[in-house]
Amino acid sequence: MNNRQIRLAARPVGVPKPSDWKFIDEPVGEPADGEVLVKVLYLSLDPAMRGWMNEGKSYIRPVAIDEVMRAGGVGVVVASKSDRFKVGDHVVGTLNVQTHALVPEKALTRIDPRLAPLPVYLSVLGMPGMTAYFGLLDVGQPKEGNTVVVSGAAGAVGAVVGQIAKIKGCRVVGIAGGADKCRYVVEELGFDAAIDYKTDDVKKALRATCEKGIDVYFDNVGGDILDAALAHLAFKARVVICGAISQYNNTTPIVGPANYLSLLVNRARMEGMIVFDYADRYAEAAREMAGWMQAGKLKSREDVVDGLDTFPDRLLMLFKGENQGKLVLRVASA
Amino acid sequence: MNNRQIRLAARPVGVPKPSDWKFIDEPVGEPADGEVLVKVLYLSLDPAMRGWMNEGKSYIRPVAIDEVMRAGGVGVVVASKSDRFKVGDHVVGTLNVQTHALVPEKALTRIDPRLAPLPVYLSVLGMPGMTAYFGLLDVGQPKEGNTVVVSGAAGAVGAVVGQIAKIKGCRVVGIAGGADKCRYVVEELGFDAAIDYKTDDVKKALRATCEKGIDVYFDNVGGDILDAALAHLAFKARVVICGAISQYNNTTPIVGPANYLSLLVNRARMEGMIVFDYADRYAEAAREMAGWMQAGKLKSREDVVDGLDTFPDRLLMLFKGENQGKLVLRVASA
Repeated sequence: MNNRQIRLAARPVGVPKPSDWKFIDEPVGEPADGEVLVKVLYLSLDPAMRGWMNEGKSYIRPVAIDEVMRAGGVGVVVASKSDRFKVGDHVVGTLNVQTHALVPEKALTRIDPRLAPLPVYLSVLGMPGMTAYFGLLDVGQPKEGNTVVVSGAAGAVGAVVGQIAKIKGCRVVGIAGGADKCRYVVEELGFDAAIDYKTDDVKKALRATCEKGIDVYFDNVGGDILDAALAHLAFKARVVICGAISQYNNTTPIVGPANYLSLLVNRARMEGMIVFDYADRYAEAAREMAGWMQAGKLKSREDVVDGLDTFPDRLLMLFKGENQGKLVLRVASA
Repeated sequence: MNNRQIRLAARPVGVPKPSDWKFIDEPVGEPADGEVLVKVLYLSLDPAMRGWMNEGKSYIRPVAIDEVMRAGGVGVVVASKSDRFKVGDHVVGTLNVQTHALVPEKALTRIDPRLAPLPVYLSVLGMPGMTAYFGLLDVGQPKEGNTVVVSGAAGAVGAVVGQIAKIKGCRVVGIAGGADKCRYVVEELGFDAAIDYKTDDVKKALRATCEKGIDVYFDNVGGDILDAALAHLAFKARVVICGAISQYNNTTPIVGPANYLSLLVNRARMEGMIVFDYADRYAEAAREMAGWMQAGKLKSREDVVDGLDTFPDRLLMLFKGENQGKLVLRVASA
């Protein structure tokens, strides 16, 4: 039996192109003591992947040239030399872009497919949900009655940020690209308003929808939208820097937020967050969010696309804003 | 008796020029009930003044066209209709750029000229000292052993920031313009190192002097130096945005800090502060800093220049980096 893998062939300049990848088939290995062999079912496609492909120091080491591309995923154990996992167990962890993964037991978490569909474990109950939960609640610290604005509002993280902010009694304005996404966050997710950055003047629209200014701005995109939000902060506002998808494929230097002095004028705070720092509290967050899902207060939407070999193209959907909800690649059927 | 005033004649574009000011002499008024007439002795010249001359919402209303230019100052009461102040009392408050000020009693604070020379009440014991104290301790939250970097290190705020950081057991690196200022902060103020932004590569010099990265960066200047500091933050660093003197006379849009994503990578925080928010704690800070001064741990240096009419030129010294320590304009002798 072969393990099909997608490896990083070259460091991309700008948008990743086909020649930045290579496809390799090699025999599936045997688990060593304490390891399990996982058949990969679903992989998480995330904007952060673009950063992992770059050389240089960041919050996590870069994927090396010739290494299998890093990815979180859900799978099923097909062979085990671990006391903690048996064949048939479903697990989540860093499985990487391949059909089979040999993984040390300590790098996996067991999940229950009866509690939620498997892709949800890569969405609300996975990294995007954790990012939204801790980024909003721990870093953004919304208070009841606050105005919360989130960019990438229809995306995997943004949709959860807005829904949690509603649960906490905030007014929520989402920024997204296109009428469909805007309709979705208002009509399906219950946001109070949405701004379509493709057709609206974001600065004017923020003034119109946030009369008392923005108390919490959760940024997934960077660039002009971050600048527009900074221009309209309320006193003592909190800006959560979670990502900057507009900048990830830049071949020119990143443009910094020209309106950063609004932090001074408004005594506001801008703070970065990385979800991995909250690993010891994931279980707590998952419990609370699962409760909200059961109560119908928190919806998860996954955009499931098919086939390992389509990975290079599917990844680009994120940067074109083509996905509707959390983008998940189905590698095999359970 | 005449009151000579310098009023704002026009909103400057870029560096303020002579025609942006006008000189007016008008008779000194009489205090109404609850007011005192103050003879102005010293005025504080501050980078923030440039911002007050611009139209538009900020943390304080702009100086209006034809209004006397706003300035903090020290003076002596020469007529009083207040129960709280008598003739001969020394006071500090917003006296504005003029020789005599009619001021409501509640806008003044009595000071004791025997405890410290009068200009010190515009320096370490005035707004710059308060800004340094609360900006560093409340917003920057330095811990013992932290590496603290301050720009504008030989300036009124920066010099105090660095000295307080030393008192709190930190390693302190100052960034200043010119060998004299760099020598001053190391040899006179006890900083551990200084970087001369006029001759050094600031980015390289920060790497060399801050091996473990910057835990607290206190920014008075903005621009390239802020960007260089962001590029070298330590995990969980705090960036205090106190000012951006490099940007105040811009006629082109402000350039934002391109390296702001370092906040994300390092889970760091960038936060603005305005000293006025701490007004109810000034007395506490003044007591503690006066104690440090008496103990020889905190030095105050004022650069006292003469003559009300020189105000327009003296103000520009700040933007050229020509002052050595807190710039104070002597308007009259006590």
